[in-house]
Amino acid sequence: MKSLKYIFEPRSVAVIGASATVGTIGNAIFSNILQSFFKGIVYPVNPKYDSIMSVRAYNNVITIPDSIDLAVIGVPKKAVKNVIKQCAEKGVKGIVLITAGFKEIGEEGKKLEEEITALANKNNIALLGPNCLGIINTQEEISLNANFAISMPRAGNVGLISQSGAIGVAALGYAYQHGLGISKFISIGNKAVVDESDVLEYLIDDEETQIITMYAEDIDHPARFYEMANKANAKQKPIIIIKTGRSVRGALAIQSHTGALSSSDTAYDSLFAQCGVIRVETLAQLFEYAKGFTSLIRPKGNRIAIVTNGGGMGVIATDAAERNGLEMATFEPDTLQALKIVLPGTANSHNPVDIIGDADAQRLSDTLDEIVKDKNVDAIVVSVTPTVDTDMNAVAANLCDFAKANPEMPLSANLMSLKPEPSFLELLKKANIPYFDFPETNIRVLAAMIKYYEWIDRAPVKIEKFEVKKKKAHELLDSIKKERRTRFTEPESYQLLEAYGMKVVDYRFAKKLDNVLIAANQIGYPVVLKIVSPDILHKIDIGGLKINLKDDNELRKAYHEINESIKNKKNDFEIHGFLIQKYFTEKGIELIAGANLIKGFGSLIMFGLGGTFVELFKDVAFRLAPLNRHDALNMIKQTKGYQILKGFRGQASYDIESIIDYLLRLSQLLMDFPEIKELDLNPIKVLEDNKGIVIMDAKVILDESIVSMVKPKIKLKEVALDV
Amino acid sequence: MKSLKYIFEPRSVAVIGASATVGTIGNAIFSNILQSFFKGIVYPVNPKYDSIMSVRAYNNVITIPDSIDLAVIGVPKKAVKNVIKQCAEKGVKGIVLITAGFKEIGEEGKKLEEEITALANKNNIALLGPNCLGIINTQEEISLNANFAISMPRAGNVGLISQSGAIGVAALGYAYQHGLGISKFISIGNKAVVDESDVLEYLIDDEETQIITMYAEDIDHPARFYEMANKANAKQKPIIIIKTGRSVRGALAIQSHTGALSSSDTAYDSLFAQCGVIRVETLAQLFEYAKGFTSLIRPKGNRIAIVTNGGGMGVIATDAAERNGLEMATFEPDTLQALKIVLPGTANSHNPVDIIGDADAQRLSDTLDEIVKDKNVDAIVVSVTPTVDTDMNAVAANLCDFAKANPEMPLSANLMSLKPEPSFLELLKKANIPYFDFPETNIRVLAAMIKYYEWIDRAPVKIEKFEVKKKKAHELLDSIKKERRTRFTEPESYQLLEAYGMKVVDYRFAKKLDNVLIAANQIGYPVVLKIVSPDILHKIDIGGLKINLKDDNELRKAYHEINESIKNKKNDFEIHGFLIQKYFTEKGIELIAGANLIKGFGSLIMFGLGGTFVELFKDVAFRLAPLNRHDALNMIKQTKGYQILKGFRGQASYDIESIIDYLLRLSQLLMDFPEIKELDLNPIKVLEDNKGIVIMDAKVILDESIVSMVKPKIKLKEVALDV
Repeated sequence: MKSLKYIFEPRSVAVIGASATVGTIGNAIFSNILQSFFKGIVYPVNPKYDSIMSVRAYNNVITIPDSIDLAVIGVPKKAVKNVIKQCAEKGVKGIVLITAGFKEIGEEGKKLEEEITALANKNNIALLGPNCLGIINTQEEISLNANFAISMPRAGNVGLISQSGAIGVAALGYAYQHGLGISKFISIGNKAVVDESDVLEYLIDDEETQIITMYAEDIDHPARFYEMANKANAKQKPIIIIKTGRSVRGALAIQSHTGALSSSDTAYDSLFAQCGVIRVETLAQLFEYAKGFTSLIRPKGNRIAIVTNGGGMGVIATDAAERNGLEMATFEPDTLQALKIVLPGTANSHNPVDIIGDADAQRLSDTLDEIVKDKNVDAIVVSVTPTVDTDMNAVAANLCDFAKANPEMPLSANLMSLKPEPSFLELLKKANIPYFDFPETNIRVLAAMIKYYEWIDRAPVKIEKFEVKKKKAHELLDSIKKERRTRFTEPESYQLLEAYGMKVVDYRFAKKLDNVLIAANQIGYPVVLKIVSPDILHKIDIGGLKINLKDDNELRKAYHEINESIKNKKNDFEIHGFLIQKYFTEKGIELIAGANLIKGFGSLIMFGLGGTFVELFKDVAFRLAPLNRHDALNMIKQTKGYQILKGFRGQASYDIESIIDYLLRLSQLLMDFPEIKELDLNPIKVLEDNKGIVIMDAKVILDESIVSMVKPKIKLKEVALDV
Repeated sequence: MKSLKYIFEPRSVAVIGASATVGTIGNAIFSNILQSFFKGIVYPVNPKYDSIMSVRAYNNVITIPDSIDLAVIGVPKKAVKNVIKQCAEKGVKGIVLITAGFKEIGEEGKKLEEEITALANKNNIALLGPNCLGIINTQEEISLNANFAISMPRAGNVGLISQSGAIGVAALGYAYQHGLGISKFISIGNKAVVDESDVLEYLIDDEETQIITMYAEDIDHPARFYEMANKANAKQKPIIIIKTGRSVRGALAIQSHTGALSSSDTAYDSLFAQCGVIRVETLAQLFEYAKGFTSLIRPKGNRIAIVTNGGGMGVIATDAAERNGLEMATFEPDTLQALKIVLPGTANSHNPVDIIGDADAQRLSDTLDEIVKDKNVDAIVVSVTPTVDTDMNAVAANLCDFAKANPEMPLSANLMSLKPEPSFLELLKKANIPYFDFPETNIRVLAAMIKYYEWIDRAPVKIEKFEVKKKKAHELLDSIKKERRTRFTEPESYQLLEAYGMKVVDYRFAKKLDNVLIAANQIGYPVVLKIVSPDILHKIDIGGLKINLKDDNELRKAYHEINESIKNKKNDFEIHGFLIQKYFTEKGIELIAGANLIKGFGSLIMFGLGGTFVELFKDVAFRLAPLNRHDALNMIKQTKGYQILKGFRGQASYDIESIIDYLLRLSQLLMDFPEIKELDLNPIKVLEDNKGIVIMDAKVILDESIVSMVKPKIKLKEVALDV
């Protein structure tokens, strides 16, 4: 990564394509820099002018007599390449390329963008854009507004990264209206060189930035993003993101059962869930959360007290608390006693406290002074609507005093007003007390904060490494690749899983009837008989599966029926032989697990209970490999089926530890062999506590692009395999 | 109901307790009326003053020389009764009683409130309150602001009813800030005489009011509310409601399986769902929806077009459309062709249309002019963020022109601004084009409107009346009541259901072993044997149930085992005898249905699939009796289990018509016998299409309070019952 220091903290900036004509981008950028009282020096570059806005202009960047840290380029597309070459010659360290018409317009633009990327990389230039709005740094010692749409926002500790210029403008407008201060704004555009993870890294190290907000349509390098998010976690800088495209991208066309439920957006959900990134759905939420994190100290727990001067708001807040998983604090008897003295007889001193409509600011203060002492209260929400008896300025002033006297108590407010932007809200702003329209928002924000800090507090865990037979798995994959196959047969899939320490229901492979019968007698009746062919995807459809065969006679009959059925289909299936398996009836719950390779993300692992759970309720959870123990447990807990596994209504509980173990082993397998495109374990049977888990059927498919073209060398032998 | 005309449209108003002291309620009310330019005459009443705010004051209401339509009373609590008596003497028609300290403070206040209620009713006075904020009528010919907290809001067509004064104030403030006009505001307080349904009725008939919004903590008379809501539907006046108390009231402690899933809030949800009332969770939503309904014409369908000047907003809107069940319109080839001419090459002419950041107002107009012609477009959302090229005033002006030229096309906007309340939003307000912060809100509002009009458009259906043996059911209930029992035995429950045309799996009742064996041979093996006792709630726990008995021997053994098991329990169970039932194994799906009596609401009927569906996923639906055919089908459709019933993934479909039939018969039974407190059919088995439905077990419990004290007269006879 090129250092972004030169983009955000330049001592000198050249605006290439600066213009004196109002209404042009080149004019807007230059005038914004000038008007932002940039602490460095700005040089307009345009051969058409001697000066722009009274500042001496230059023909090109090379002729500038001083060294240039940052070039902001707004020249026509056809001139861009040449301008960048000049920047390289001049030794410019950073570029913000505003000009549009690259990757976003198709092949021609994409080619040009690739040339620019190469040019910047070769010359070690940190290039932001193209097709971007620019950047803002509100830091007093820098004070740089290098964008063409918006004036300088309030300074603050919220960093904002936007992949869309329009959303960036909207977001800054919204932030301004809601009194939220910005540290840095970055419009990242096409991400030809610098991407969101680079900017993230810069903001994580940036002392001015405490909260990072982001609008993203995609993430270029999920693995690096994951790494950066963990770095942010270590510094307790929350990342709040809107990632759009849930519907647009739609579900990926993956054919297996597993894949049908996953989509690339699921991969994003998993990515964010695995690194503590807070995903929101709306810009309003993005800033509500940012406001909370920027103003509220961390609540010690989830027990909130609500103080209102009208019962209705208390009820709304109480409903919202339950909806968001917060607890209404139960006051100590001492608190209740004290509140009875402070409040009139008709008031409600239980939580939510109603100090009633005739309350003045003093009564509110007296109430808060008692509540703050209660050890059961982790956060306070105050909701006051104006009545004839309420001096809202006095209320706000008293809240400020209270906040000052009690810096340990998270306090947020709704002071309803009948007019926009009343002066008492300014008081709250100055005292850093966050306020929202309605108490439901305060509650939602507190819930998000509590969840975030719970994540931060988790004991760190490493990715576990199991001792497995990796070499054996390697040989197996090689042999399949050499046959130019992508599809594992069932016994091959089993061998792979067994190499990674997973148990498969007892099985044998055989070709001829005699050996089939021998295998069945070794295993013990009843058995299942399955056709083995790399060409048959659905055994049942083709009549290639017979279950619960109780003796030699039934098995013999099933053998002939399958052969007959295959023959009748008139096709060229390559038949390897037969699989003889124990007909497994031990008491347990059917699970499914699987994985799909998602471009850019690696393997997306799925887990759920089988049957209705997965088919109708889509009650499954996803996480990206590699999984750690937290991830594995979380994905089990995320499903409703978890209630069944841990023993529903006094019924038996099942071996969850073994499920975790298998998910981790599966993860290790997928990390070791990224050429596995699809893996489907369906069903798996988990037995009661401590009795383990057994795989009953498996499917493994390799990525076509990496299957070698070499002719087959090894054939499956008709012997009992690794059982 | 007393006519509310005198409250909202009085020619003369007495303010009893008016005061000259600023900061008192009596002063606030009087000065608000005076300052609202009330078109009638207002008389201050207070023996302490000769005049108040230069207006001649009166000692009491009786001494006023003219007739008085409305008295607004703000005197101390102890004086209220006397003042109301004076009002009655004077012939006052309406009272708004502001004074607090009644029902809400406990027993003493409740008693006083009851006296006031009686007084008002006796004298035919429409009394609003006590403990309320007052009322507002913005209608030009009236212009009355009779409340003590807020000044006159903008006039408009939204009626606002609030049970909480504080929420009322907050809501009016919010409405003001968002440019929403109010027709009437009513703070209903304790509802001693006039309740929400009365006010609803007034607003439904009120020509000034087109949309009704409401904050409610409870509904006094659900049946009357239902009737009013249907009246509102007939006039296409949407009712949008926040009903709080989802968590506070919590689940009612009802013991049966059915009841465990229901709560009084569920009854409210059912009530609203059955009469097309739109329930929202937040005040913000309340006004978003109101803004949509007040400004947007009815969309013809759910296919929307989105036009933005920045791709990001288009993506956000598209995501929101899918989330809210709207379709993105697919443009006709002609439209695409025309848009290609209007837009630059780099723009996206497919929906969502991106006219890109350099677009001026003309390009937006040209785009809209093409889209409006497309027959696939039912509504348009325009989202514009300011750039250097955008003159937002011109954009707003062009939108107004477009709206004027295309009055049939629902158009809403997000014109992002960097400052609060910019002038171009005023343009939109005047042209009645609703605008919201972000496109996700426009989409949500459109979705709510479309759903509402779908409801309005449904073919009306009557409650069906089946021919049933009501007399027989009556006799059965009488016999049980006479035994001072509340609990039906199983055969009694079956008789009741059969009387209402529902089929129960073949059964006999017998006492002695010989007759048990005869019964089983009549039915045919295999059978189920169950103990029959009004004292045994859970047969299985007591060892009172044996299934799948295949012959006389097994049945004999089971008979002795049950007898033994009962004996060992050492108790005083009254044993009626045994139930012999066919062991039913026909292919079908297990359902549950039931009902609970909810105070004020009548019977709340539940339906769902059995097993995991109900236990883990709580996949059940509720509706209040009486059900019509829409309700019954809707409650089936509302469950995920519906996917199974209609044939999931090519599997068999089940007899949904019979389920509807049974739900309707159940509803009729519950309406005929409101003394049924609990009814539980679990399981029911629905067979494949056209094969019907069979009840396998049933429980019926009567309300204790109505079970007669008469000694038993009839005993169950040991004979085959009505089978």
